Amino acid sequence: MTDKSLAKGLVEIYTGSGKGKTSAALGVVLRALGHGLRVHIIFFMKGDYPYGERNMLAQLPNASFQSFGHEHFVDPQNVKAEEREQVREALQAAREALASGEFDLVVLDEVNIAVAWKLIEVEELLTLIEEKPPSVELVLTGRYADERLIERADLVTEMVEVKHPYQKGIKARKGIEY
Amino acid sequence: MTDKSLAKGLVEIYTGSGKGKTSAALGVVLRALGHGLRVHIIFFMKGDYPYGERNMLAQLPNASFQSFGHEHFVDPQNVKAEEREQVREALQAAREALASGEFDLVVLDEVNIAVAWKLIEVEELLTLIEEKPPSVELVLTGRYADERLIERADLVTEMVEVKHPYQKGIKARKGIEY
Repeated sequence: MTDKSLAKGLVEIYTGSGKGKTSAALGVVLRALGHGLRVHIIFFMKGDYPYGERNMLAQLPNASFQSFGHEHFVDPQNVKAEEREQVREALQAAREALASGEFDLVVLDEVNIAVAWKLIEVEELLTLIEEKPPSVELVLTGRYADERLIERADLVTEMVEVKHPYQKGIKARKGIEY
Repeated sequence: MTDKSLAKGLVEIYTGSGKGKTSAALGVVLRALGHGLRVHIIFFMKGDYPYGERNMLAQLPNASFQSFGHEHFVDPQNVKAEEREQVREALQAAREALASGEFDLVVLDEVNIAVAWKLIEVEELLTLIEEKPPSVELVLTGRYADERLIERADLVTEMVEVKHPYQKGIKARKGIEY
């Protein structure tokens, strides 16, 4: 194994209700970039909200990303056709990123939520995993990870919320939570 | 609140046995840098091992770090004087970073372990927290976070190991775990 490729790419899942899922994926990205790996991130559900991490990602060598969805949060009880279409486009982008051979690490941010809210089928994601090139590391984030994804994954961490400032009425802060 | 400062800096803890603690802290760092915040990271227990993230951190604007300890892992049953001294130096560096006014976010990586293994006293860390400038966000990582730290923190996430490739005999891989 050299700095530039992974002998075997695994499937990692960061799920649970606690803060740190997307953050952990970004940390994995930073580490991978530090070893010269090529990284692509697909934001499934976050749209064009000005998340701080994207300002940085846009500046990093060997890192690229695509963003789908809109600023507002999807209401799982009332999913709009446009929202479903955005997630479908994100999934297609994920397939293309994996098939391209251009990346050593691919992150599908909030994809677990897209499955939990039935914007895409878990079978579609399982098929994507089966068809990915063996050398590509795949990271899936988002709460409510499907049991079949957990079963298939090689590494699963559940972020458990022990304490959160929301509990004290402190709102999300720019630069920290987004 | 502007992009350049935090109205109120909180204390965040990422603990637990699962993968993702340092990764989450690094993700928080990336996000903060994206908003123009100034970040300092102190690695308490990782020494000069060639972790991938440091290659990147060294290249990022407004990010700096200091590293203490040695390549090998400390044996908590047999802590050497030199190891204790390294952690004391790390703690002093943390105090100075907080007092300097030069940083908006300070990360003390693996400091929880340093407390759990009694390389430093929890009271010293609690004092450091009390004396930090109110605007500085402080992130503490490492498993076995002391109950008194959890009590004091504003945000605590426990990374629970649901599944880990070590369980299948897969060793730590460069570019992913370090």
